[in-house]
Amino acid sequence: MSFRVAVDAMGGDHAPDAIVGGAVRALRADRDVTLVIVGDEPRVRKQLACHDLGEAASRLTVHHASQVVEMDEAPIEAIRTKKDSSLVRMVALAAEGKVDAVLSSGHTGALVAACQLMLKPLTCVSRPGIAVTIPSLHGPCILCDVGANISARPRHLYQYAVMASLYAERVIGVAKPRVALVSVGTERGKGTNLVKQARDLMEQDDQINFVGNAEGSDLFAGRCDVAICDGFVGNVMLKFGEALAEGLVRTITKEFHEETPDFQKRLRGGLGRVYHRHDYSRYGGTPLLGINGVCIVCHGRSDELAVENAIGVAGQCVRGGFNDAVAKRFEHDGRASKPNGHYARDATH
Amino acid sequence: MSFRVAVDAMGGDHAPDAIVGGAVRALRADRDVTLVIVGDEPRVRKQLACHDLGEAASRLTVHHASQVVEMDEAPIEAIRTKKDSSLVRMVALAAEGKVDAVLSSGHTGALVAACQLMLKPLTCVSRPGIAVTIPSLHGPCILCDVGANISARPRHLYQYAVMASLYAERVIGVAKPRVALVSVGTERGKGTNLVKQARDLMEQDDQINFVGNAEGSDLFAGRCDVAICDGFVGNVMLKFGEALAEGLVRTITKEFHEETPDFQKRLRGGLGRVYHRHDYSRYGGTPLLGINGVCIVCHGRSDELAVENAIGVAGQCVRGGFNDAVAKRFEHDGRASKPNGHYARDATH
Repeated sequence: MSFRVAVDAMGGDHAPDAIVGGAVRALRADRDVTLVIVGDEPRVRKQLACHDLGEAASRLTVHHASQVVEMDEAPIEAIRTKKDSSLVRMVALAAEGKVDAVLSSGHTGALVAACQLMLKPLTCVSRPGIAVTIPSLHGPCILCDVGANISARPRHLYQYAVMASLYAERVIGVAKPRVALVSVGTERGKGTNLVKQARDLMEQDDQINFVGNAEGSDLFAGRCDVAICDGFVGNVMLKFGEALAEGLVRTITKEFHEETPDFQKRLRGGLGRVYHRHDYSRYGGTPLLGINGVCIVCHGRSDELAVENAIGVAGQCVRGGFNDAVAKRFEHDGRASKPNGHYARDATH
Repeated sequence: MSFRVAVDAMGGDHAPDAIVGGAVRALRADRDVTLVIVGDEPRVRKQLACHDLGEAASRLTVHHASQVVEMDEAPIEAIRTKKDSSLVRMVALAAEGKVDAVLSSGHTGALVAACQLMLKPLTCVSRPGIAVTIPSLHGPCILCDVGANISARPRHLYQYAVMASLYAERVIGVAKPRVALVSVGTERGKGTNLVKQARDLMEQDDQINFVGNAEGSDLFAGRCDVAICDGFVGNVMLKFGEALAEGLVRTITKEFHEETPDFQKRLRGGLGRVYHRHDYSRYGGTPLLGINGVCIVCHGRSDELAVENAIGVAGQCVRGGFNDAVAKRFEHDGRASKPNGHYARDATH
């Protein structure tokens, strides 16, 4: 099944080089993918000239955009004023039905806002959420939301649980994913009012394999496949963990600086393999769940491999019929917002 | 300057052995410390019999308590019903002025609640907060709150900023500590309403060296000495980081399992040193800031060294006159809750 992805060439630390390079890799790797690279055409063309596209050239177009959304801009303001930015032009292509998915390593807030405003959330979904895959010894754990919605309500968290569970099942391939709610203790009474109310909603929906609260440490303990939290908590936690892991690897490397060159070489090799296995680029990009389309949010530092993999994730979301599954689960509007036993039973038919 | 500490012998994964062992170490290490070990007297005495106390015996008493607060109990309920628990008896000793500080590796929620109810917060402090020291390549960063108060208001966060700053200065020894507010972006407009309002309060107090918002990653970037967040975020972040670090070290060890025995031995040695340097037991225990007394919250897994160091931290808090400094900063009640330029100027006199 072929799919079409628009890629924001101008977003991210290594734009446009890594974006164009990753796009070329994706075109070569999968003959079913068709790409539209959106951005400053002369710069994109110059970068494309470095690659021998061959057959893939027929599946690639460049869509010019004269502006770039900068990282320090206010999201809504940027979208309103920079109509000819690569980010806005890219999302417009999806809104017009010209592509199936969009992808950017640029301004996450602006990307989320553009998708919400221009693609709109899926019917019955209140607020989209970003789902990131966290690797651990026990396998991946999907954490949602990590920053799309920092003022979450109980119903938003409940909907994240439904959507992230479907994502884990259909895109990551986890059967009957165990869904947990992030809190300060596993006991029922622990947590904020938001958590307690969200827990009630999750428990009432027997289509979710809800396993209760999870503490921050449980995400690495193999106790859940999906962990739900509000975007503020998820964002802080994710960035904290990322910096901690990097700092720890640096500290370890430093600790052995007086060892023999051979020891250091073997150490670096092993650490490199560990780093690679746990690298965000393996997972390629994190989907914005709940919008009427497919949007992949890439890390600002994405390299060619990350972009290639992110395009792969976009393809999996399109092919996996993820949005259809979410829409089906939420088809009874009023019930979706107030799940109960009846809703759960109805939806299995 | 001598100081008296009551220690909860029955709390934590290694109670009472590690607690008693740590107490003995502390007595030997510092002739200024006097200890009251609170718990099941026969068990404590049996454990004490394993140690040759010598001179230290004169600075040690055992205070019997027949009950134990279990980890799964509701804090307030446990305090109300288990009047003869080691935790409640211990805090009572402080409330009666018989000791200067208390310390437990047991139920954190119950400890915080007991201190709030029996010792009371310092005048003008709304809600106590737990301040943990996070090690990084750039030096320690104090994170407050990590779980005492999961429903924080702007004024609570502002007061944490003042208290954690004084703690960093007087106990950890950081001159003019840089204080940051944890958020999802460093820009002024980023964050929840709680964060935005707390930021306004912090900015208005020129006695705090406020440096703006910090993302989760900034805690390891040497950009701030003190980071403020609500207890829900802090708790989740801390437990997430702890498990991540452990998982990463395990993954690295596993990666080299096919290496030579000599390589593995050297690797384990170095990883052990790194782990040790960054171990919570070095910092010994985390103070509950803002109560009318000194309370040190220890990790549930505390070993003898951790308990010894925690008693040392208790001593530093008592000797450093930390509470007097906090009281002085907040002496103008109404102003403390609504800081403004005048308050800040007044307080410098």
